Amino acid sequence: MSTALIILAAGKGTRMNSDLPKVLHPIAQASMLEHAMAAGRALNPEHTIIVAGHGADAVRAEVEKIDETAQVVMQEEQLGTAHAVDQAREALSSFKGDAVILYGDTPFLQAETLEHMVDARAKADLVVLGFEAADPGRYGRLIMDGDSLEKIVEYKDASEDQRAIRFCNSGLMACDAAVMFDLLSKVENKNASGEYYLTDLVELARAQGLSVTAVSCDETETLGVNSRADLAAAEAVFQARARADLLEMGVTMMAPETVFLAFDTVIGRDTVIEPNVVFGPDVTVESGALIRAFSHLEGCHVSRGAKVGPYARLRPGAELAENTHIGNFVEIKNAEIAAGAKVNHLSYIGDASVGEATNIGAGTITCNYDGFMKHRTEIGPRAFIGSNTLLVAPVTVGRDAMTASGTVVTKNVEAEALALSRVPQTNKPGRAAKLMDMLRAKKARLTKGAK
Amino acid sequence: MSTALIILAAGKGTRMNSDLPKVLHPIAQASMLEHAMAAGRALNPEHTIIVAGHGADAVRAEVEKIDETAQVVMQEEQLGTAHAVDQAREALSSFKGDAVILYGDTPFLQAETLEHMVDARAKADLVVLGFEAADPGRYGRLIMDGDSLEKIVEYKDASEDQRAIRFCNSGLMACDAAVMFDLLSKVENKNASGEYYLTDLVELARAQGLSVTAVSCDETETLGVNSRADLAAAEAVFQARARADLLEMGVTMMAPETVFLAFDTVIGRDTVIEPNVVFGPDVTVESGALIRAFSHLEGCHVSRGAKVGPYARLRPGAELAENTHIGNFVEIKNAEIAAGAKVNHLSYIGDASVGEATNIGAGTITCNYDGFMKHRTEIGPRAFIGSNTLLVAPVTVGRDAMTASGTVVTKNVEAEALALSRVPQTNKPGRAAKLMDMLRAKKARLTKGAK
Amino acid sequence: MSTALIILAAGKGTRMNSDLPKVLHPIAQASMLEHAMAAGRALNPEHTIIVAGHGADAVRAEVEKIDETAQVVMQEEQLGTAHAVDQAREALSSFKGDAVILYGDTPFLQAETLEHMVDARAKADLVVLGFEAADPGRYGRLIMDGDSLEKIVEYKDASEDQRAIRFCNSGLMACDAAVMFDLLSKVENKNASGEYYLTDLVELARAQGLSVTAVSCDETETLGVNSRADLAAAEAVFQARARADLLEMGVTMMAPETVFLAFDTVIGRDTVIEPNVVFGPDVTVESGALIRAFSHLEGCHVSRGAKVGPYARLRPGAELAENTHIGNFVEIKNAEIAAGAKVNHLSYIGDASVGEATNIGAGTITCNYDGFMKHRTEIGPRAFIGSNTLLVAPVTVGRDAMTASGTVVTKNVEAEALALSRVPQTNKPGRAAKLMDMLRAKKARLTKGAK
Repeated sequence: MSTALIILAAGKGTRMNSDLPKVLHPIAQASMLEHAMAAGRALNPEHTIIVAGHGADAVRAEVEKIDETAQVVMQEEQLGTAHAVDQAREALSSFKGDAVILYGDTPFLQAETLEHMVDARAKADLVVLGFEAADPGRYGRLIMDGDSLEKIVEYKDASEDQRAIRFCNSGLMACDAAVMFDLLSKVENKNASGEYYLTDLVELARAQGLSVTAVSCDETETLGVNSRADLAAAEAVFQARARADLLEMGVTMMAPETVFLAFDTVIGRDTVIEPNVVFGPDVTVESGALIRAFSHLEGCHVSRGAKVGPYARLRPGAELAENTHIGNFVEIKNAEIAAGAKVNHLSYIGDASVGEATNIGAGTITCNYDGFMKHRTEIGPRAFIGSNTLLVAPVTVGRDAMTASGTVVTKNVEAEALALSRVPQTNKPGRAAKLMDMLRAKKARLTKGAK
Repeated sequence: MSTALIILAAGKGTRMNSDLPKVLHPIAQASMLEHAMAAGRALNPEHTIIVAGHGADAVRAEVEKIDETAQVVMQEEQLGTAHAVDQAREALSSFKGDAVILYGDTPFLQAETLEHMVDARAKADLVVLGFEAADPGRYGRLIMDGDSLEKIVEYKDASEDQRAIRFCNSGLMACDAAVMFDLLSKVENKNASGEYYLTDLVELARAQGLSVTAVSCDETETLGVNSRADLAAAEAVFQARARADLLEMGVTMMAPETVFLAFDTVIGRDTVIEPNVVFGPDVTVESGALIRAFSHLEGCHVSRGAKVGPYARLRPGAELAENTHIGNFVEIKNAEIAAGAKVNHLSYIGDASVGEATNIGAGTITCNYDGFMKHRTEIGPRAFIGSNTLLVAPVTVGRDAMTASGTVVTKNVEAEALALSRVPQTNKPGRAAKLMDMLRAKKARLTKGAK
Repeated sequence: MSTALIILAAGKGTRMNSDLPKVLHPIAQASMLEHAMAAGRALNPEHTIIVAGHGADAVRAEVEKIDETAQVVMQEEQLGTAHAVDQAREALSSFKGDAVILYGDTPFLQAETLEHMVDARAKADLVVLGFEAADPGRYGRLIMDGDSLEKIVEYKDASEDQRAIRFCNSGLMACDAAVMFDLLSKVENKNASGEYYLTDLVELARAQGLSVTAVSCDETETLGVNSRADLAAAEAVFQARARADLLEMGVTMMAPETVFLAFDTVIGRDTVIEPNVVFGPDVTVESGALIRAFSHLEGCHVSRGAKVGPYARLRPGAELAENTHIGNFVEIKNAEIAAGAKVNHLSYIGDASVGEATNIGAGTITCNYDGFMKHRTEIGPRAFIGSNTLLVAPVTVGRDAMTASGTVVTKNVEAEALALSRVPQTNKPGRAAKLMDMLRAKKARLTKGAK
């Protein structure tokens, strides 16, 4: 069976109080829309239609970044959920198969749940996703008769008995696309808010003798986000799960609640993570690494036995081989650090490669930017880069070479050579004492003058 | 009606276990006394009298810092709350109007509550502030008859029925000053602890036919601080509210519980704050800025579109214009960074101005201190400061100028000029290999000798 | 009475999902085994026997590090707790006195509890440690008759009445060693899992007319660790207690939940700790110090009035005297910083001494490592080290001496002298403009070529 996903992403999210469209707000460093699209991908859909409205340009840009085959359709006016889904009509005019409707602001939906919905289509014409609510509050209630969904009752219309039901409507649906669009054309907006409601499909379907059922998912899967506080709460839910998963898989975290993971963070067994570590997107840490406190990693790969931090910043393209050490106040960007190499203090290594067992002294800087372009620095194995060496790229330092402390390396250093650019030190006896006297007197004069 | 505030701040706070007077312990980076004085300021008081005792010198210094017009009076011996208030008698001898009594260790009192107390004075001679306690415990109970406060019953003297009352005494009062001092002179200390209690004013007032009432406030407003654990708990209350306010106003915080705000932090809508950010006092961040993880800001201003951190430290006087970038391990102090300028890595920019679109290379340091005085560095627009440039202030770099990596700038650089102070690099072939052999041999020799 | 400790540490801890033996996982930066051994040390034991199995080499190495007098015996196969204890038989063959059995994975056991067990031996032949469980779940129940322990009933064998008992078996025991080994030789493994259970000692003892009793401890003392999540939870318990203790002792922590303490952290009264500070092992902070946000301390000593951080890293051997300042992005290792000295920005001071009131400029680096050995830098009092000074150790800077910004100090600087190694600055008029034009053109050319 072919499937078409329709993801509703047109809402403004007024309570977000933001210029950013609601579905683009991030959880675990991916937009909510990306989370929804990732869940939908499990159905291997023939079409993915995103219904955009508020901030459509930004939504379109995000969709293109995530999945070039997805299609954005416009809902110019926000006239209700049925109206939103109806905007996909043209894009799916020649499509044969099932339409599955989901929402761009429910980032916790599991792929398995979508599969259950699709599976349930074998036994019913229309499938609604429900959830058992601990506190059903003002959600619409699903009135079941065995496997058959009799109707959806809005809270305000529900009897006491119906309000006691805890099986609630999530708003997600699956249905043959042609049938769905046929039903949609019959939805009316004769209600208080004048909107076209997707929930009306249930009644319309039953009215023409179609079978309707509901499948159930965990309440947390349909958790929606309507405010920044909701967003922070959803982030907390994500983080708590991701941390628990890592603990289960054999990662040690001294204080899991202070470790922040991205949606795609991969960390190997017996890695130890100290408190206060932040992972941006696209990080892989192999087994048995040590990530010390106050480290920040994004877009990087850390190999077995590597020691990172405290206060290490690994930026995109940082590739740490086995048993490397990256120490405090060190930034690594777009650079391969070979096995056993060390960059221990106060350095910036960008657009570079550092050879095996090479030692990079404190305060070393790769001068990779000339104001217009970035250039590369290549350092061979077993080199010794003296403290405060400046490597003016493009430049190469050969294997087993050294640079003296404070050298400005502007031309290549061959293997085994020593590079230096040092002025002999001069000591001027008594000069410091005189200078200090002078400065002290000057300060006294100025301070007096200021009074 | 003129108002005189009397703030009781003489207590030692034994359970704080501190040399610092209790009221000077901080919440959200302002002393509890400052919080109390800030609430009181809403009454636009003619007099603000602080009753000091323990650590009076420190209290006096703090009061002078906050409000030069406030007056500190001494309570030499701590003989009870009535005795404390009585120390204000002389300072208010010629004052006509209402006295409002509050406490230096209840930092959550709202200005509106004080206004309610003053308003209630229109209908009663003495106004007491009460609060509805969820768990009234051992607080004194307010026994009301309609709007009339009949009496305050201490817990130990209360009947079962009275203990069931949850309307409790906060200790705050408002009264005509002359009447209050008259009543105070009648308070006796014939009780177990031999202290003069302010609560006795209620009985004394009623005894001479004065009307007494009580107004109510939220329980959290009168939360007192008696230990460091209380202090930490009060801080947590403050932070939770301040974070919720920011979320409501449209600030994104991935992990609000890791963002620490000061009493006066201002952050604009659609600003994103990553985990682990600390705000000291006097910070304003405009809308649409990005404050990355592990940043520390105090006394600074961050404009629209600026990107700060991770690991950026903005100190007092840092002024970031629009679209500036301040990167990792960078300290900015007393410096204006103009629009579009970048200081991305491992730099110290202090007592300086940096022009529009200027790029400051990694490792750049403004040498602003000569051991006695601070001097300024001025860098024009569109300049390119090479990595590890030292700017020995006072010094100026003109517009569109450059400095080579590693330059020590001791004299001004004119517009469009290139400054350099570089020694040509020498490569000594084979010398690194020899040096390493020598050092290796030396180490072997010493290691052997050590055995 | 002589005592022998037997600590069971052979388990694999399958649910830890780790190559590291369970007892070596750390809490508060000491292995659980170290916590157990520390508790046992209170008994001043004549023998300390560690029964190792899984990862025995690593366990042995840890034991040697903690206590050279402790002895490791092997349990080659894990055949149950009785079998484990029996491995100590040979090591204790000539020992006369009590054996006390404890576990390497219950890190919260208090020394007092062990003392209670030993004291109870005066009145009973065998002493079992029990605890009152809030939720006794599937623990074995201790069936008491007055002071006499009648039997231990496993949960699966317990009646409803027995299951209602909340006094549970911790597994710890104390007994005359000879008696214990005699009883152990009678334990059988005729049970479902084919293991030899230590709990059988109770029944065997009673069968031969010995008296058995139980003493009680707080439930949290016998908290065991079976997974990484348990480990994180145990860490949280430790931290919560340690933070509460510090608050009680008069330390201010703005956000105690963000301060991470080691098992041996000592902090003086009226010290203020800002959010996000991590203490490694062996740190002492005197009274009245200020530890600012994002600081990381291990193996160091901070004196009265010192100011540390934000972003300061103190490594082992850092000794800060009174009123020192260590500022942002500064690493101090194996170095004494004398009273009033300042290292405020972006520096690495390692293997060094810094004299009283000396000021170390931003970007200063001690070049302490030549690729083979570490060397020392000694700086006298009242010196002024200019920004970005490199101190190539071994080297000495005398009292009241100065170094110019950017100096590479390779030979000693006498007292009151000024050291410099500076190239005069050259300004090349118009050269920056030309260079930028050239680079701009080059970039345009390359960008075009790339299209």
